[in-house]
Amino acid sequence: MKHEDIKSVLESGEVGKEAVVCGWVRTFRDSANVAFLEISDGTSFKKLQVVIDKSALAVDAECTKLGASVRVRGEVVPAYKGDGRELNAKEVTLLGKCPPEYPIQKKRTTLDFLRTIPHLRLRTNTFAAVFRVRSVAAQAIHRYFHERGYYYINAPLITASDCEGAGEMFRVTTRPWNAKAESEEEYYKSDFFGVKAGLSVSGQLEGEVAATALGKIYTFGPSFRAENSNTTRHLAEFWHIEPEVAFAELPDVIEIAEEMLKYLIRAVLEECPEELAFFDSFVEKGLIEKLKHVESSDFAVVEYTDAISLLEKENARFQFPVSWGSDLQSEHERYLTETVFRRPVFVTDYPKEIKSFYMKQNADGKTVAATDLLVPGIGEIIGGSEREADYDKLVSAMRERNMDLDAYRQYLDLRLFGTVPHGGFGLGFERFVMYVTGIENIRDVTLFPRSVKNIK
Amino acid sequence: MKHEDIKSVLESGEVGKEAVVCGWVRTFRDSANVAFLEISDGTSFKKLQVVIDKSALAVDAECTKLGASVRVRGEVVPAYKGDGRELNAKEVTLLGKCPPEYPIQKKRTTLDFLRTIPHLRLRTNTFAAVFRVRSVAAQAIHRYFHERGYYYINAPLITASDCEGAGEMFRVTTRPWNAKAESEEEYYKSDFFGVKAGLSVSGQLEGEVAATALGKIYTFGPSFRAENSNTTRHLAEFWHIEPEVAFAELPDVIEIAEEMLKYLIRAVLEECPEELAFFDSFVEKGLIEKLKHVESSDFAVVEYTDAISLLEKENARFQFPVSWGSDLQSEHERYLTETVFRRPVFVTDYPKEIKSFYMKQNADGKTVAATDLLVPGIGEIIGGSEREADYDKLVSAMRERNMDLDAYRQYLDLRLFGTVPHGGFGLGFERFVMYVTGIENIRDVTLFPRSVKNIK
Repeated sequence: MKHEDIKSVLESGEVGKEAVVCGWVRTFRDSANVAFLEISDGTSFKKLQVVIDKSALAVDAECTKLGASVRVRGEVVPAYKGDGRELNAKEVTLLGKCPPEYPIQKKRTTLDFLRTIPHLRLRTNTFAAVFRVRSVAAQAIHRYFHERGYYYINAPLITASDCEGAGEMFRVTTRPWNAKAESEEEYYKSDFFGVKAGLSVSGQLEGEVAATALGKIYTFGPSFRAENSNTTRHLAEFWHIEPEVAFAELPDVIEIAEEMLKYLIRAVLEECPEELAFFDSFVEKGLIEKLKHVESSDFAVVEYTDAISLLEKENARFQFPVSWGSDLQSEHERYLTETVFRRPVFVTDYPKEIKSFYMKQNADGKTVAATDLLVPGIGEIIGGSEREADYDKLVSAMRERNMDLDAYRQYLDLRLFGTVPHGGFGLGFERFVMYVTGIENIRDVTLFPRSVKNIK
Repeated sequence: MKHEDIKSVLESGEVGKEAVVCGWVRTFRDSANVAFLEISDGTSFKKLQVVIDKSALAVDAECTKLGASVRVRGEVVPAYKGDGRELNAKEVTLLGKCPPEYPIQKKRTTLDFLRTIPHLRLRTNTFAAVFRVRSVAAQAIHRYFHERGYYYINAPLITASDCEGAGEMFRVTTRPWNAKAESEEEYYKSDFFGVKAGLSVSGQLEGEVAATALGKIYTFGPSFRAENSNTTRHLAEFWHIEPEVAFAELPDVIEIAEEMLKYLIRAVLEECPEELAFFDSFVEKGLIEKLKHVESSDFAVVEYTDAISLLEKENARFQFPVSWGSDLQSEHERYLTETVFRRPVFVTDYPKEIKSFYMKQNADGKTVAATDLLVPGIGEIIGGSEREADYDKLVSAMRERNMDLDAYRQYLDLRLFGTVPHGGFGLGFERFVMYVTGIENIRDVTLFPRSVKNIK
């Protein structure tokens, strides 16, 4: 079906020439002599206005219904307002009717309602803008790493190991719901993989395998958490960016995370000005200012021990008072980044007891070379660390946690054969999209969100 | 750990300046006065030669062991051969020892053996080259679609619907192996999602949701097949590229697939010349010639009915003789593309009985607007179609297949509210990587391959 994208007609349609476009009717206004049809085909945030001279052209009433799909042939003319283009219609052809039961009507619909019709909500301004930003951000992630010589790798999603401490896993099976077995071992022996298998919560361990051969790698793929939590910030299935870099120590990890985050924010600011202006008006006042501030800040760095000292003085204001050894809650994170530092801040060198086995043990014997990046308005957005590269220290950390060393033989091998300092971090993609759009519910930045009892 | 990438030293190191690099020892040659260490850090296919003047510098023997990791400080000098650079060592520091049990030794190891050590095989030339090509191809895919205004979308992987006919699905559950239930319904009611859930075999149906709102979209994410087949061309988990385009009819789908495939091949030819030269020498003689031929061919198009006429004349040569209505086997596909057309060929308009319910029904009442792209040396590489946009025809195709209409209400809604012609196709990413590297086993282009009884 030969036609042009509405975006290209709007931006570079040659005045006086004929153009053919296709799209869905977004508004229709009628007057005595002229009627106006606004149509959208998804290629641009802006819609194309089609002007119908009623004395010259009779248009099927079905072509004017909200949500109907049409093809329009017309002459490109300068827009009545602004420097865009519009079309003087010569022919309007119906492609698909849209009956009045169409659930997306012009009256302001709520995000809650739209969540019940995930297959249609992308046809609204808000969701089209969210998924445009999401796509631009994803491109920027690939571009950032590729330009810097990182390999994109695909960590396996079905896995036989569970990444200690990262949360509950889904099990993957081909056995029927009522399969019988004498024992757990026998049950899994008859299963597809012959052993218990689950969905990966992180690609980090495989990322380390790749980084200690290829140097700089990143994953950008799905991760899964079978957590029974129904919050606006958690999904059972989400997309995860996890770079891993050989020969990188904690300060390098911090430098990369800061540079990457600024790069991504800059890309969205530059490539999605219309979408951000829309979110700034209708979703989060001051959004663009917030993003520009972060993009131009020097991020702060503070050791956990110092952060605790700062927080302890203010314990009266917190629901959960802190002391050395406490895990930081959202209230503490936001206080640090919003009130103390007033800019993004990396907290480093956490107590080893509240962090994972694979993090590099510091010389003090108490802390590990971990870091969380806290940003205003959201708290933690990135978590990373230098990894323990010493075989004996890694084994002792695993023993302290009663882990099964045999399940981690490959991972330990990386420390036996040419071990190197290395590190990396993880960024939840949906969290980032929420941050740059101001959307407060993670379900609204995800095409078909999955969470407990929710699989529409 | 401040250092430079080996790639940047090799390509643009300033002669006479000092450089610090890190890497793994790949070869060591010793002579009376001078020793040579070749090191690699993954950033380039080429290794960096480090020259050690033994009268001036004593190097720890551990630094010369295959697989050991080292840091080298040295003076950049012109390479003895070619126009690259090498380093005259001033200091060689051991980062990590590599004991003689290291399974990757210089003697030629087989791909079969390397498959048993997936966590170390990336340290060989072959696998480093494969994963460099894989990464470059992935980038090219994102670039191709982004430059043309497609949105990148992430279809859900955990799904409650099964995409009719696309093969066996894995089940996703949080119930323990020995969970008891009175009935299937009760079993799933207590499961995480409250209904039976599985791993998606295709993002197409969700891609159609997005395309009929956003215009042009593509997915690039994992798909799963729980097929009990242990071949060199099938995985239980693979990455899948699935563009979907509103207002596209079958000829448009064909045009996009041809243009995309050529773009990807061109990107790999241009960006991976060293890797392709290596594969051409050691993996598939004539590989580069093959790729250039495909990249510069006008792809042929033949209707299934005509293809069958061509094949029937040659039925004597086939293990499985064909007649109208037959599904094409690999031997027929390869005969068509390698012997009849001698270039890539789109076969179109297949009998509806051997294709999926969602494909557009042609006016003849017998065929559907489907196409498979066949390429020399491999057979089918892309499968696509125009989708049935007419509600009544889609319902009748589903009824003929005894499908549960209620499970597809969202999908059917797309045909009720502003339906449009649309279409798309699917490309298995690993199949593409096999094609452009000449690697014959899909397990060798996948970081941690998953197949029946195989989850290392």
